[in-house]
Amino acid sequence: MYTFSNAVNSMHSEDIKLLMKMSSGKSLISFAGGMPNNDLFPVKEIDDIYNSLSENVKKLCFQYGPTSGYPPLVKSLQSYLQKKGLPVDTNKILITTGSLQAISIITQEFVNQGDIILTENPSFVGALSVFETYEAEIHGIPIDKDGIDIDALKQKIASLDKMPKLLYVTPNYHNPAGIIYTPERKKALLEVLSNTGIILIEDDAYSDLYFREEEKYLTKSMKSYGVSDVEIIYTGSFSKILGPGFRLGYMLASPEIFEKAETVKQALDACTSNFMQILANEFLSQNKLQPYLKFLRKEYAERKNILQNSLKKYMPKEVTWNEPKGGFYIWLKLPEHISSTEIFKESVKKGVVFVTGRTFDPASKKDDRLRLSFSNMPKDTIEKGVKILAEAIKIVIDNSKIEIS
Amino acid sequence: MYTFSNAVNSMHSEDIKLLMKMSSGKSLISFAGGMPNNDLFPVKEIDDIYNSLSENVKKLCFQYGPTSGYPPLVKSLQSYLQKKGLPVDTNKILITTGSLQAISIITQEFVNQGDIILTENPSFVGALSVFETYEAEIHGIPIDKDGIDIDALKQKIASLDKMPKLLYVTPNYHNPAGIIYTPERKKALLEVLSNTGIILIEDDAYSDLYFREEEKYLTKSMKSYGVSDVEIIYTGSFSKILGPGFRLGYMLASPEIFEKAETVKQALDACTSNFMQILANEFLSQNKLQPYLKFLRKEYAERKNILQNSLKKYMPKEVTWNEPKGGFYIWLKLPEHISSTEIFKESVKKGVVFVTGRTFDPASKKDDRLRLSFSNMPKDTIEKGVKILAEAIKIVIDNSKIEIS
Repeated sequence: MYTFSNAVNSMHSEDIKLLMKMSSGKSLISFAGGMPNNDLFPVKEIDDIYNSLSENVKKLCFQYGPTSGYPPLVKSLQSYLQKKGLPVDTNKILITTGSLQAISIITQEFVNQGDIILTENPSFVGALSVFETYEAEIHGIPIDKDGIDIDALKQKIASLDKMPKLLYVTPNYHNPAGIIYTPERKKALLEVLSNTGIILIEDDAYSDLYFREEEKYLTKSMKSYGVSDVEIIYTGSFSKILGPGFRLGYMLASPEIFEKAETVKQALDACTSNFMQILANEFLSQNKLQPYLKFLRKEYAERKNILQNSLKKYMPKEVTWNEPKGGFYIWLKLPEHISSTEIFKESVKKGVVFVTGRTFDPASKKDDRLRLSFSNMPKDTIEKGVKILAEAIKIVIDNSKIEIS
Repeated sequence: MYTFSNAVNSMHSEDIKLLMKMSSGKSLISFAGGMPNNDLFPVKEIDDIYNSLSENVKKLCFQYGPTSGYPPLVKSLQSYLQKKGLPVDTNKILITTGSLQAISIITQEFVNQGDIILTENPSFVGALSVFETYEAEIHGIPIDKDGIDIDALKQKIASLDKMPKLLYVTPNYHNPAGIIYTPERKKALLEVLSNTGIILIEDDAYSDLYFREEEKYLTKSMKSYGVSDVEIIYTGSFSKILGPGFRLGYMLASPEIFEKAETVKQALDACTSNFMQILANEFLSQNKLQPYLKFLRKEYAERKNILQNSLKKYMPKEVTWNEPKGGFYIWLKLPEHISSTEIFKESVKKGVVFVTGRTFDPASKKDDRLRLSFSNMPKDTIEKGVKILAEAIKIVIDNSKIEIS
């Protein structure tokens, strides 16, 4: 179910305080954590890999490696990314200690205190916390079901005194919104950025987790569109396709950006664990990834379906949502004047946790949504959790009607 | 022997260029890399540990963990550090992705562009590169065989317009100088820092690697002296007592410093690999560390003795050095007017590599020394390497005499 150590990282600090106050010792049903379920990890595959390593390769596991990454893993990643259409010949890969480190490195490379960074609103809370740490001025751009709001983006850029340094987006199976950008929206976004000098960070942690083969084409990344008038840094992660405990991510960027990023990385932690890189490399090069992804897609699709059906069954009609085509999340829209923080208080009392909407707002305000993560839920608990959450929502809605009348 | 990927991190960038130009394809004898030898890693012990993990713990290996560290490892470290006399009850441990990350976190926490950091001169090149990345103004303080030069430190502090933020030292088996501070020098250092507000970073990566049991007492850390008028952040590493490939280090600091450091760490890479932390924890908690250290001390002492004897046998009498009591390094002093960079050029031609003195000078100038690392050397290669190096040194000395006369 729920452990503090796993889920707190993606929760709002005020919500954590409330949770710790109200839930001491209680067993909670958690839709909060955006991580895989422990029972889905490829433990057997990694066991086999570890025990088949030669003595010499095992010794390498213990040693320092190059800052840019363990060369065989870089090669395996090149081949993996090439299959996705990414320009691995003209760009360079830097292996990082999780993709969050890639975002941190890019920020350190390009952003000084007071510089402007654009993000989606809502946006991945881990990236927001990086941008805050480097004291950037963050401006959130609204999104709809097809991607970032192009007019709002244009207006924002036009309204600013100085050009933003970065735009950070997660177009595929957005965290928390669960949407995927349409190809048209991706193109429109690139047109807006064309020749502005704004660097696009395309964070693509979830693209392998589509639910239907025939919708896979939607995951095609902007970095693979071949435009030359927008600088795109593509980031990826092993957290969703192997395990977050490996702390492995990467960035694909132009040689110039790569070179500076390598220097920053060297001063952050010298290099990423050879041990973890060697295991991940065997996972890729022994062709264990694709069968595992097939398994994961089925598992997550099942969880999504159960969640979707439970929502239909229990939620009051004023609550709406989009059905995701992949990834980990459903993003509920609440009726007007109802805040997810109010619902959080009621829901925790009843034993169900989720992440409040304001958590993902750069200004920590907009609170008319809430994120349900189905990735870490045992299948047989989802319906029970939704039922309880629906009751909590109804109570808050009913109370608000009493107050208004 | 030598691989670029392993040793370049601690070499001067100019020397790397020269090396790449001159050594293409050649097999080199390397005294350069400050890492353990691949043949010394506890591969068998980690094999046994990995294969004895329960299914549930293996699943945990794949998952996110708390930013501050895997709780059982924090507990094992508390017990390990308590035995060294460190104040684990009043201070808190943060697990980091290598001890370099701890230094990076501390710098991000306390240092703004243009702030002053004091280091020893020479100093650990990894720390220097961190301080440079954060655009600190670095001032090196000379050291002698007993530790940092107390008068020079006092004069430096008195001469500065503003108070330094940090003093970074590695008192035990110094990298590159190989010395250990005397207890008197440690006390004198603490007196100088008393109530100045300068935070002391005590980097202690090597203290378990003493050569003689009866000299172990010399490794007692300043953090364990119990002074209340100097803020000390103690950093440690698993790189020398398990393997750098684990990327595991830690800091022990006051709760206030810990709390901010945890926030910085969260934005750098969210958390350190659970996989690596779980293996390291078993290594500590199953009491495998102490027998392994006993083995390592014997191995390194043997290498040091061979190097020491070879130096006595082959070096021209103008070259001097201190015999180290532990650690990885011997720091040769060259005759006046001879630079280690000149010797480097001659030595690479003959097939021997080391790290030049200027690499460890914050100003990248002082070049009258060179570092020989014996940790990564096969025992049967040391004498051959020293013989060749001695020849190179003699050639440079002879040439300089010709130029003078």
